[in-house]
Amino acid sequence: MEQSDMLKQLGSKAVGAKYELQILDTDMKNKALVEVASALVKESAFLLEENQKDIRAGEEKGMHAGLIDRLRLTPERIAQMAEGLSQVSELKDPIGELMEVIERPNGLHIEKRRVPIGVIGIIYESRPNVTADAFALCFKSGNAVILKGGSDAIHSNKAITGVIREALAGMGITPDAIQLITSTDRSVTQEFMRMKEYVDLLIPRGGAGLIKSVVENSIIPVIETGTGNCHIYVDEWADLKQAVPIIVNAKTQRIGVCNACESLVIHEAVKEQLLPALAEALKQHNVEIRGDEQIRQIIDCVPATEADYGTEYLDYIISMKTVSSIDEAIAHINKYSTRHSEAILTTNEENAQKFLNEVDAACVYVNASTRFTDGFEFGLGAEIGISTQKLHARGPMGLKELTSYKYMIKGKGHVRK
Amino acid sequence: MEQSDMLKQLGSKAVGAKYELQILDTDMKNKALVEVASALVKESAFLLEENQKDIRAGEEKGMHAGLIDRLRLTPERIAQMAEGLSQVSELKDPIGELMEVIERPNGLHIEKRRVPIGVIGIIYESRPNVTADAFALCFKSGNAVILKGGSDAIHSNKAITGVIREALAGMGITPDAIQLITSTDRSVTQEFMRMKEYVDLLIPRGGAGLIKSVVENSIIPVIETGTGNCHIYVDEWADLKQAVPIIVNAKTQRIGVCNACESLVIHEAVKEQLLPALAEALKQHNVEIRGDEQIRQIIDCVPATEADYGTEYLDYIISMKTVSSIDEAIAHINKYSTRHSEAILTTNEENAQKFLNEVDAACVYVNASTRFTDGFEFGLGAEIGISTQKLHARGPMGLKELTSYKYMIKGKGHVRK
Repeated sequence: MEQSDMLKQLGSKAVGAKYELQILDTDMKNKALVEVASALVKESAFLLEENQKDIRAGEEKGMHAGLIDRLRLTPERIAQMAEGLSQVSELKDPIGELMEVIERPNGLHIEKRRVPIGVIGIIYESRPNVTADAFALCFKSGNAVILKGGSDAIHSNKAITGVIREALAGMGITPDAIQLITSTDRSVTQEFMRMKEYVDLLIPRGGAGLIKSVVENSIIPVIETGTGNCHIYVDEWADLKQAVPIIVNAKTQRIGVCNACESLVIHEAVKEQLLPALAEALKQHNVEIRGDEQIRQIIDCVPATEADYGTEYLDYIISMKTVSSIDEAIAHINKYSTRHSEAILTTNEENAQKFLNEVDAACVYVNASTRFTDGFEFGLGAEIGISTQKLHARGPMGLKELTSYKYMIKGKGHVRK
Repeated sequence: MEQSDMLKQLGSKAVGAKYELQILDTDMKNKALVEVASALVKESAFLLEENQKDIRAGEEKGMHAGLIDRLRLTPERIAQMAEGLSQVSELKDPIGELMEVIERPNGLHIEKRRVPIGVIGIIYESRPNVTADAFALCFKSGNAVILKGGSDAIHSNKAITGVIREALAGMGITPDAIQLITSTDRSVTQEFMRMKEYVDLLIPRGGAGLIKSVVENSIIPVIETGTGNCHIYVDEWADLKQAVPIIVNAKTQRIGVCNACESLVIHEAVKEQLLPALAEALKQHNVEIRGDEQIRQIIDCVPATEADYGTEYLDYIISMKTVSSIDEAIAHINKYSTRHSEAILTTNEENAQKFLNEVDAACVYVNASTRFTDGFEFGLGAEIGISTQKLHARGPMGLKELTSYKYMIKGKGHVRK
């Protein structure tokens, strides 16, 4: 079949599935998630075998060991994947929630109710576990999902999708709740991003390049996730005993994640007292410091350039800049922020509130590590990503963020005057 | 100045303004709206004079009388524009609203608060009143707005924007809360749609062609508004005494609007009883009926083609189709719907609920005219448009729909384990 016809067929199957899924009751969805989880565990041998094909292909083309590791399934990872599905089955079903009731003076009764978005497309890179995670969240929120995973994981993704589809079919649920685009041709992604007739929302999950490409080429509404050039501002009123552990945690607790701290903004009043101890603590974690002139007068470090302030390192590097006021700090952060997570360390209530109000980011912290920006840490359960845009959803996206709403209006023969 | 430089300058001024507007208090915003309203009235003579330039240019190039009328300002229309601003000043300010509080077991205190979106771009056609309306809603919701109006209304739009900016400046508020793109070069709109660095949301207001072009070319998130191929389904359990007035109202009360009914779906059990009276009532309003074969066996009308079922006429025409079940009706509507407003006429509770649940549209009605889909009719106050997409906002968009949210998190030295 031609690529376009294949995509259209996937699209119309997904649309068919969305009408079934929007009215599937919570119990049935939960049972299906548990059933899928056990099917994945039961089919472990098959999944590992198919995964081996991807691993061998990766090794043959000289893929980096870190990437091979991300690609690899193990019995433990399959068990974790299954555990993730069971956890989603325990989350509250958002569908049908009565969000608002409006009684109009003319007697019209208007209810605003939560409904699924419909068909969600997810474009992601090499982690095969995303296949099961994304399905679980979309399915529980009543959406059909079309997945386009990285070509490096194609055998693993086909196997996982196949097991899920079979388990659904076995329960009498449409297997088209999850479909995988199996073509690994690059042009297929371009075409997928123009399937506005079938797909209601596209979520890219992966590196900055992937996200930029989707944002620039999709005509389907997109939610941008991920990039985090996160700052911590150490105010002149900071409790410096708290500052060092918070900064070390935000920078080093996990290095390659979007909520890690990449840049420090320091009020000049505290630089002398803070920097030596901080530099020592960061050195123990092998973190390279890139500082402005004032920083370099106090500690030994690499000079920071303008480019450093705009860089999400995802590495053992941190940039540092001094400021002479909270206004300067806020202006600097608003200039370089990717609108993900930003923190102030201060004991001054007024400055804390000013920072919360004026810094433009999804999550703004007072006296805490930026590492808390996460669906589980916020109590939302699993998340599909962290939105850095302002439309629809901002910050960690759980089940609710995968829904829309609908107005249901009851009249008694009402006509407009 | 080069066009790109000019746009970048507008963009960075808007970003500057958004930081001021996000912390402007409600009283100040309301006073400014009232002040702007009275400035517009006071400057009526100037506005009429500038508007005359657009009218003359339109007449010279042979513009259609209907379009000239849309373009025209009169003292009454200026007074209405001012009245609109005053009304917005009376609406509740959505900014700062505490939407949710999450207390985490580890002691983190998380507040989800409503904030402005930031910078909103609006691309519209020839009505100069949109200039003032869009400003009022964006300003009250704490957003800076960049307007790109139709070139036919350029003198009127410059004049209105100028008066608003001057009134704001007179109150010590940044006039960059509203900026107008004055270039009438077609390429400027293309470039504007790529200003993602400065603009957070783009709303097109106008015909289907304009909206399609923005959706396909913008890399800024867009909210799609407007197109409405709205259906009314007359169920086998319909109260036929109500049916005729509702259908006549939905079709004819105002013909060129997105919530007008364009297509009727009729259960075959009621066709014989309904159609003669309905045809007679529609004839009195000069409505042309295009029906399928079963319809044509009962009343005299034009044959309907597949294309008719997908057409938003915005005219004195209605298409009609018969079905043999509510499932067939829902499938037909879901196939041709533009997801705006859809209605069922029935006295059967179960069918009503089924229709509400299964029809995929922003507003779904039972026993009422589709004409109620409107910000004022829903009690939201003024609206910036009717969203037909599922992301962010659906249906009438008032002040709340022009906002985003932010998580504000307070810790006591919290680090992630």
